[in-house]
Amino acid sequence: MTHRPAAVLNPRGGTVDTHTTPAPAVPGYIADKAEQLVRLRRIEGQVRGLQRMVEADTYCIDILTQVAAVTKALESVALRLLDAHLHHCMTRAAQDEEECLDDKVAEASAAIARLVGA
Amino acid sequence: MTHRPAAVLNPRGGTVDTHTTPAPAVPGYIADKAEQLVRLRRIEGQVRGLQRMVEADTYCIDILTQVAAVTKALESVALRLLDAHLHHCMTRAAQDEEECLDDKVAEASAAIARLVGA
Amino acid sequence: MTHRPAAVLNPRGGTVDTHTTPAPAVPGYIADKAEQLVRLRRIEGQVRGLQRMVEADTYCIDILTQVAAVTKALESVALRLLDAHLHHCMTRAAQDEEECLDDKVAEASAAIARLVGA
Amino acid sequence: MTHRPAAVLNPRGGTVDTHTTPAPAVPGYIADKAEQLVRLRRIEGQVRGLQRMVEADTYCIDILTQVAAVTKALESVALRLLDAHLHHCMTRAAQDEEECLDDKVAEASAAIARLVGA
Repeated sequence: MTHRPAAVLNPRGGTVDTHTTPAPAVPGYIADKAEQLVRLRRIEGQVRGLQRMVEADTYCIDILTQVAAVTKALESVALRLLDAHLHHCMTRAAQDEEECLDDKVAEASAAIARLVGA
Repeated sequence: MTHRPAAVLNPRGGTVDTHTTPAPAVPGYIADKAEQLVRLRRIEGQVRGLQRMVEADTYCIDILTQVAAVTKALESVALRLLDAHLHHCMTRAAQDEEECLDDKVAEASAAIARLVGA
Repeated sequence: MTHRPAAVLNPRGGTVDTHTTPAPAVPGYIADKAEQLVRLRRIEGQVRGLQRMVEADTYCIDILTQVAAVTKALESVALRLLDAHLHHCMTRAAQDEEECLDDKVAEASAAIARLVGA
Repeated sequence: MTHRPAAVLNPRGGTVDTHTTPAPAVPGYIADKAEQLVRLRRIEGQVRGLQRMVEADTYCIDILTQVAAVTKALESVALRLLDAHLHHCMTRAAQDEEECLDDKVAEASAAIARLVGA
């Protein structure tokens, strides 16, 4: 499922309905994109490390310590994404470019609830 | 520590600096206030129930089940507060009444991180 | 639901079937009981503090900070209960007094999963 | 850091001090090893999927949903490891092969606290 802003400026200056003419949306985390990719590649490496630990019959508690570290790293990616997203939404709201504030808040709140594990 | 919007309308129509003349701020959760109080009183009752369980030497696992229930209930209060807060901030941003968007997002993100346990 | 060890010594020295003649079981957290009660009473006070904050229209983020503190305090109670419980089970297992190890591990694992929020 | 049981049988029948002559220990999760590897490979694939989502400027909330799914999957790996570990420790305790019950419980409790995020 991909969400996009409901309306964007087209190159000739009018607004277009993105439901018929989708345009690439700039995500809120664009400024942080390169760094987030570095973090996700590091997490991928950590998950491969977990596989090697299991293959080598590593002591259970040591694997659990490493799983907790990977979970923290994922949580950190999520919190940065969310921070960028909220910033993006607030800025758009202030510029009167956010049509459906209620929907935006509802989906952000649902995402936070999933992160909290609720 | 109590945060308030940096500037509010005073009764005579101008804006006042709340640092010198604090005015009561309406919190984002105002519409949900009565229901949140009901929830918090129920949580207080659950915590007293936990005390009775410990006093009665209740089996450990049964107490843990109840602790998990209280934690869920608190989480639910927190998620509703946060939802109301985000809604309030977005609405104010859209009405150009939010002076420091960056600060608002930063403190919301920090609150989310604390909820997630990061 | 209350769990009890399946068999305990009766005052006259034999073992009795607790399904027909229940006897008070000593919980694993017995040594920590007084301190756990102190913690739970402090948590009750914190929850009443949350009610006062909501009644006083306290700024949302400040309430969330306090909710996170109460959640941490509850988590701490749970982790101490679990630690005492595991200790109790392991000691009983070592003394050949634990009849159904598999059941004990299964219920401890389920309790941990609930704490983790899974 | 690798933990091993403090003493194991050597091939000639006596016990050896593993600090001078380490012997391969069988981890508690041995029966579940193949399935845990499958799960970890799937998680690795999910993390690569997250990278592709970020590269493709996927909508933030959709990435967050996927991060929550990966976190749940990791949590599930951890809970299975812990369950196997507790089972292993309890069985060893019952067979009088666990020398330092207190240490085992302390390290299991610390691992649980890290999982809970405390």
